Amino acid sequence: MPVLALLHRLLAGPVADLNGPSRALLVTCYPVLLTAVVLALSLAVHRALPAAGGTWLFDLPSRRRRSNTTAIEGEAMARTDPPAPAGPARADVEEAARWLSGRVVRTPVLRSPAIDRLAGARVLMKAENLQAGGSYKMRGALLAVGRLAAAGHAGVVAQSTGNHAVAVSLAARGHGLAATVVLPVDAAATKVARARAAGAHIVLAGTTVEERLAVARQLSDATGHPLIDAYDHPDVIAGQGSASLELIAEAERAGTPLDALVVPVGGGGGVAGACLAASDSAIDVYGVEPVGCDSLARSLAAGRRVPVVPGPTIADGLRPSCVGELPFAVLRDGVRGVVRVDDEEIAEAFRLLLLELKVLAEPSGAAGLAGALRLAAGRTDLGRQETAGAGGPEPAGAAVLEAAGAGGFAPTLVGGLETTGVGRRRYRTVGVVLTGGNVEATLVARLVGERLADVTSVEGVAA
Amino acid sequence: MPVLALLHRLLAGPVADLNGPSRALLVTCYPVLLTAVVLALSLAVHRALPAAGGTWLFDLPSRRRRSNTTAIEGEAMARTDPPAPAGPARADVEEAARWLSGRVVRTPVLRSPAIDRLAGARVLMKAENLQAGGSYKMRGALLAVGRLAAAGHAGVVAQSTGNHAVAVSLAARGHGLAATVVLPVDAAATKVARARAAGAHIVLAGTTVEERLAVARQLSDATGHPLIDAYDHPDVIAGQGSASLELIAEAERAGTPLDALVVPVGGGGGVAGACLAASDSAIDVYGVEPVGCDSLARSLAAGRRVPVVPGPTIADGLRPSCVGELPFAVLRDGVRGVVRVDDEEIAEAFRLLLLELKVLAEPSGAAGLAGALRLAAGRTDLGRQETAGAGGPEPAGAAVLEAAGAGGFAPTLVGGLETTGVGRRRYRTVGVVLTGGNVEATLVARLVGERLADVTSVEGVAA
Repeated sequence: MPVLALLHRLLAGPVADLNGPSRALLVTCYPVLLTAVVLALSLAVHRALPAAGGTWLFDLPSRRRRSNTTAIEGEAMARTDPPAPAGPARADVEEAARWLSGRVVRTPVLRSPAIDRLAGARVLMKAENLQAGGSYKMRGALLAVGRLAAAGHAGVVAQSTGNHAVAVSLAARGHGLAATVVLPVDAAATKVARARAAGAHIVLAGTTVEERLAVARQLSDATGHPLIDAYDHPDVIAGQGSASLELIAEAERAGTPLDALVVPVGGGGGVAGACLAASDSAIDVYGVEPVGCDSLARSLAAGRRVPVVPGPTIADGLRPSCVGELPFAVLRDGVRGVVRVDDEEIAEAFRLLLLELKVLAEPSGAAGLAGALRLAAGRTDLGRQETAGAGGPEPAGAAVLEAAGAGGFAPTLVGGLETTGVGRRRYRTVGVVLTGGNVEATLVARLVGERLADVTSVEGVAA
Repeated sequence: MPVLALLHRLLAGPVADLNGPSRALLVTCYPVLLTAVVLALSLAVHRALPAAGGTWLFDLPSRRRRSNTTAIEGEAMARTDPPAPAGPARADVEEAARWLSGRVVRTPVLRSPAIDRLAGARVLMKAENLQAGGSYKMRGALLAVGRLAAAGHAGVVAQSTGNHAVAVSLAARGHGLAATVVLPVDAAATKVARARAAGAHIVLAGTTVEERLAVARQLSDATGHPLIDAYDHPDVIAGQGSASLELIAEAERAGTPLDALVVPVGGGGGVAGACLAASDSAIDVYGVEPVGCDSLARSLAAGRRVPVVPGPTIADGLRPSCVGELPFAVLRDGVRGVVRVDDEEIAEAFRLLLLELKVLAEPSGAAGLAGALRLAAGRTDLGRQETAGAGGPEPAGAAVLEAAGAGGFAPTLVGGLETTGVGRRRYRTVGVVLTGGNVEATLVARLVGERLADVTSVEGVAA
């Protein structure tokens, strides 16, 4: 122990000069002194390392999560909530990304000049609608099921409006586990068919999360197979976060680092994962909720989880009655705000993605782009943009998407973060996670067919 | 010149021993002898290098193109055609790929378990429908326009049913050149709108290639701006071929090298590029033509270019009346066969791509997948596959797509290549180039809406 030897040598001289009771006292206090010095050094390093971007052995997830807030917002607020349960941290998202690499599709990041022009910013879209199983839910499901399989479980139980159930079914088949999944009686037929095709045992129950959850818990108790929650699960949050991590890294590599990241919100697992993925950067993370299904928006405003009675929306995946406990513990400090979008905006984003980007996103996924366009709507004059766009110069670089301040989107943006008076932030590059692509053929026909007259104006800005 | 010095030293001894007329004769013949030796060595190297995979200085494009045939088929046939005009070679495709890298989108290679199962083989799809401008035509157009811009031209003229016109318009804008494009009076509105949005001068003329070409030539003469043909142009063939080159390389890298490559055929530029890209491999290249628009099929059967009166088809991009001269010079020896598909098969492939792969391909692009499925149809019992697929093991690896022999597809496969008696070839991995994604919203609604009852059975095999 060179440190102790050095300390001994340093102290031995002065101590040798002393005698009598002073010496006896000092010799007795020696271990205490030494402990104090080691502790002081330890604390100094502990404080210095995070500032230098390093990590520290004792920096537990809950501690790191809180420190994000200060970095992002500098907002001081006395929290009265009970301490958050142990949730995932950024390191878990990184580990998930490593483990999932090669096990899931590395989905492409796509871009459309027409969409850039409409948004007034670069919009980089992570096409998780092209993910195995048709949605980014495959990431969390594969990670959670993989760990349960490694722990020796023979089966799993899950409930969701569809994509999580499909993903758990496929992940279970991949690991040779039995899967029992509970879907609502009004689930999209394509999602039920996909879960069934993966060999899962299908149970249809109720129309709300509570009804499905009660059935799923009964099934879990009866079979002894663990329940994998669709969002209140650390592996699910970390897995979903890996999509954001890839998008952030690819944007960085392309020389267009993200200023903001927009993710649709159901139970909040995906956007919580995004917050963790972005937690060591200055990227503003926004959630998107359908009007009337805005539990996260209300929860952020209230400072505690607030359930809602979900209203009707074409975004069937964004209808849980309440944001999850684990996600909210991350989100209440990590997310910059929530954008509310209505069905018409979602349908418009759906058509843009289909006809301009050439990909099929389900309305829940299209909501992400609708949110990004809504963020921009306070500033962008679409009519003017269209005129300038036709034959004009490339839009990227010149136009920027602006957030905060007295913009037109203020009524739909909550979280108490716009009131700090930090002024406007300009977003040159916005990332969007297109979370899924499992959509009914009938709904595609209806969404493409409706307002066909409007499509021409959209095509007018295409390039 | 050490070689000459060496030869001189070797020959000097014997020559010195001779005298009188023998010596005079030998000294006179010395240059002739030396030339003969150098020529013999040169020819030996010329023959040895291609076998070793090397290239040779004097191996001109036309020479290399012919040698492909022997490598692929070993078919000996006395050709009576006039010598082919100077066309592009594999090296041109490689050079195009290098030049286009970073200038066009490196489109992803996509795959769907449901499509693999239907085909009975791995189907790797190069999503050029996600290319800038909405089709792979951007590659050839950018290369051709780039070279004309470098040569100092101030503008270009092009004609096509749409995608080439859109691509040339965008490429011209990118290079600051004026573009005049001629489209048919019945062109897809989205393609006209996209060309117009790119700032091109639009001329609508006739419904056939001949009518458009006549107008385009007039415009070219009047403006002095060169005409960039949609397929009878070496840069266009080489540019389009770079998509196939990327697909071949990515399949190789993923550990699933292609056995066959399927490309839709309009004027034949893309499939000729594919043949060049695949010319140093054992990959079988197939073209796909709509029934009634089968100029390439008829031309291969006749051994010379045969025009057709194009019948009606939803694949608006595959309707030229005759395969191009330069493409045919490559194709008559390079392509293994042509698969004819009808509108119903194209519509079914369109729906599979949309609902399973989650991408929007235009019917002309979807024809590629329709062709791959048609190739497999001789063997695959779709009903049986569906049953086996639900919850069964992964299809890839076990099932294979079979071609040639007395398969059920024989009536639709031409080219005289199935008559050589080489027996059946088994395709484990088939590449498909999804050439474009510019499609009318009305057509999307119609294709998705029609036969909605059938969609459920398709979804039954999804996973």
